Amino acid sequence: MIHSSFHPPVRTLMGPGPSDVNPRILEAMSRPTIGHLDPAFVTMMEEMKVLLRYAFQTDHELTMPVSAPGSAGMETCFVNLVEPGDKVIVCRNGVFGGRMKENVERCGGVPVMVEDEWGRAVDPHKLEDALKAHPDVKLVAFVHAETSTGAISDAQTLAELAHRHDCLVIADTVTSLGGSPLKVSEWGLDAVYSGTQKCLSCTPGLSPLTFSERAVEVVKQRSSQVQSWFMDLNLVLGYWGGGARRSYHHTAPINALYGLHEALVILQEEGIEHAWQRHRDNHLALRAGIEAMGLSFVVNENERLPQLNSVAIPEGVDDAAVRARLLQEYDLEIGAGLGPMAGRIWRIGLMGYASNRRNVLLCLGALDAVLSDIGAPIEGGVAVEAAMASYAAS
Amino acid sequence: MIHSSFHPPVRTLMGPGPSDVNPRILEAMSRPTIGHLDPAFVTMMEEMKVLLRYAFQTDHELTMPVSAPGSAGMETCFVNLVEPGDKVIVCRNGVFGGRMKENVERCGGVPVMVEDEWGRAVDPHKLEDALKAHPDVKLVAFVHAETSTGAISDAQTLAELAHRHDCLVIADTVTSLGGSPLKVSEWGLDAVYSGTQKCLSCTPGLSPLTFSERAVEVVKQRSSQVQSWFMDLNLVLGYWGGGARRSYHHTAPINALYGLHEALVILQEEGIEHAWQRHRDNHLALRAGIEAMGLSFVVNENERLPQLNSVAIPEGVDDAAVRARLLQEYDLEIGAGLGPMAGRIWRIGLMGYASNRRNVLLCLGALDAVLSDIGAPIEGGVAVEAAMASYAAS
Repeated sequence: MIHSSFHPPVRTLMGPGPSDVNPRILEAMSRPTIGHLDPAFVTMMEEMKVLLRYAFQTDHELTMPVSAPGSAGMETCFVNLVEPGDKVIVCRNGVFGGRMKENVERCGGVPVMVEDEWGRAVDPHKLEDALKAHPDVKLVAFVHAETSTGAISDAQTLAELAHRHDCLVIADTVTSLGGSPLKVSEWGLDAVYSGTQKCLSCTPGLSPLTFSERAVEVVKQRSSQVQSWFMDLNLVLGYWGGGARRSYHHTAPINALYGLHEALVILQEEGIEHAWQRHRDNHLALRAGIEAMGLSFVVNENERLPQLNSVAIPEGVDDAAVRARLLQEYDLEIGAGLGPMAGRIWRIGLMGYASNRRNVLLCLGALDAVLSDIGAPIEGGVAVEAAMASYAAS
Repeated sequence: MIHSSFHPPVRTLMGPGPSDVNPRILEAMSRPTIGHLDPAFVTMMEEMKVLLRYAFQTDHELTMPVSAPGSAGMETCFVNLVEPGDKVIVCRNGVFGGRMKENVERCGGVPVMVEDEWGRAVDPHKLEDALKAHPDVKLVAFVHAETSTGAISDAQTLAELAHRHDCLVIADTVTSLGGSPLKVSEWGLDAVYSGTQKCLSCTPGLSPLTFSERAVEVVKQRSSQVQSWFMDLNLVLGYWGGGARRSYHHTAPINALYGLHEALVILQEEGIEHAWQRHRDNHLALRAGIEAMGLSFVVNENERLPQLNSVAIPEGVDDAAVRARLLQEYDLEIGAGLGPMAGRIWRIGLMGYASNRRNVLLCLGALDAVLSDIGAPIEGGVAVEAAMASYAAS
């Protein structure tokens, strides 16, 4: 019963993440493992913090990766900032706002929900009403870029409203970091987490995190202990907090961190504004092709994430069958809808390294071919040309 | 301010972990990333479960890796099994028993401590006394192989006592898995977690986990919600639990899982009994050299872990200076003591791929040279020969 080594197929990853990983990052992950207290590793950790601050556009001292995926980054924010009985406004316009609510409840907090339709941005007026109706709220939590729908919210305005009512802000930037303008310090986001497998196009497994001074102060002044030992920032910072003497908390995921370091070096080489522009340009080309085919976007134009394109599945087309053919015939992965969106939308990612012309043309060409083949009501044979025209105009 | 790629030095890792990683595993981690719901990935996940059951010597259905380091594996056991008010006996004979106590408290449980000296095994008589004194205890938790001291405890006997008093057993096997005999099903261990960076000689970042049917039943019958969303097995199993339809919980750390899969394939190729024997043989050779030098072990012979050798630092020798020279001159990492053992012991790991003749000879030769050079009270020039004699006799 000896199993043999696993050799994955080579896919093009255009779902909601993981996205295509830059080969430089894969190579970095295979470099020799060293100890988590090795002086050379500690130097790398300090560089990582500087590079992460650049990616987040912040000068927050507490900026580091959590040694687990984005959902653990989310939980790290909530378990450290929420104490039993705390009221937390949670803006929900997709799956991840719902997950925030669960986190508040599991910390013994009281969620106050601000609901928006899936596929829409968070409405600042609704947030303002909720803040007025609940003057005892401590925190406002929202998702900057909803991965489940492809909608982006106005994080700056939401944060301003929260601060005007003396609330701290928790923001999910899993899908925005590196792909859409995100200015943590300028916008005053207090506790921000992200993921590595989206627009940083690194492998999944780590969650970049940044906390403002104010947020750190709240963690230090807690009257109850943080319920998670693994995620307690008071302990984690004994290791990541810097200084000559670092104490062991957990064994850092050494090689995964090599990968993230390389991803951040690549981002800095490109320049973050250029990365944002590239995501925009490729989105416009994909959009031109999608619309030329006669397909439509689910999210309003001004609330649309360039790195995650939610496209309505035409009436009568079998979602799963189309995705299976794209995977089998083109080694192309696009994403399904989640929750109420399941079977109704495709989520086409153009994230990080995967946001490039080759992927745009492959996706349009493959989708065109498969949909034409099954007789779907689309305009065939024009999508790729439309995308090329978009590139020529940009 | 562009940072450049990080190129780690090539070390020999003979501390308490991470241990030297087999190059096959590093190569596996650099294979192309695919989606966490890709049919090819799902096949790999199913193989992973079979391979992990072999490593744990169990047929527990719930056997999978937690997507975070060993300390998150520990927390996964406690948050799922402990409810507020539950009494838990925690056997403490080193750092990790103390961490278990913290976990119990943060879950709202009541720890009942069974204390043993650091460097000794857990005393079954003390556990029995505690079980008799506290008939309302729900769980017994202990560390099979204490990484902080190098002592191994008799997990089978401890588990038998616990079951006789109708308690479930939580066992930390971070350092034992793959290095010392561990028979999860035969011994009746109910909730067991481990790490990847010890005797599996994989990179750090994942925590193999296995739960008995009884333990799963306790999780299902909880009256309160698991306080961690990320670690709630009721949710995690929607993804790892198998079946044709898997639901998204968190994005699995794809490439790290490639590495673990490869590590488990390597273990199965060698055969787990052979791996145990290899750890034993290399330990005996190291021991012969250490004792020939006139150095002594901290742990009694019958309670000694072959994969983690705690050696007393000779009077007057500067711990940190010696380790720094080993690192600078020989690229060799050995471990420092933790807590009350700091400055008093060195922890020399012979784990997984690192448990080999080359490492034994390098470590003895380097230690001999550095200690002789600083005039430490040792017998110089005999250690390597003593180790060779041990190999010849085995």
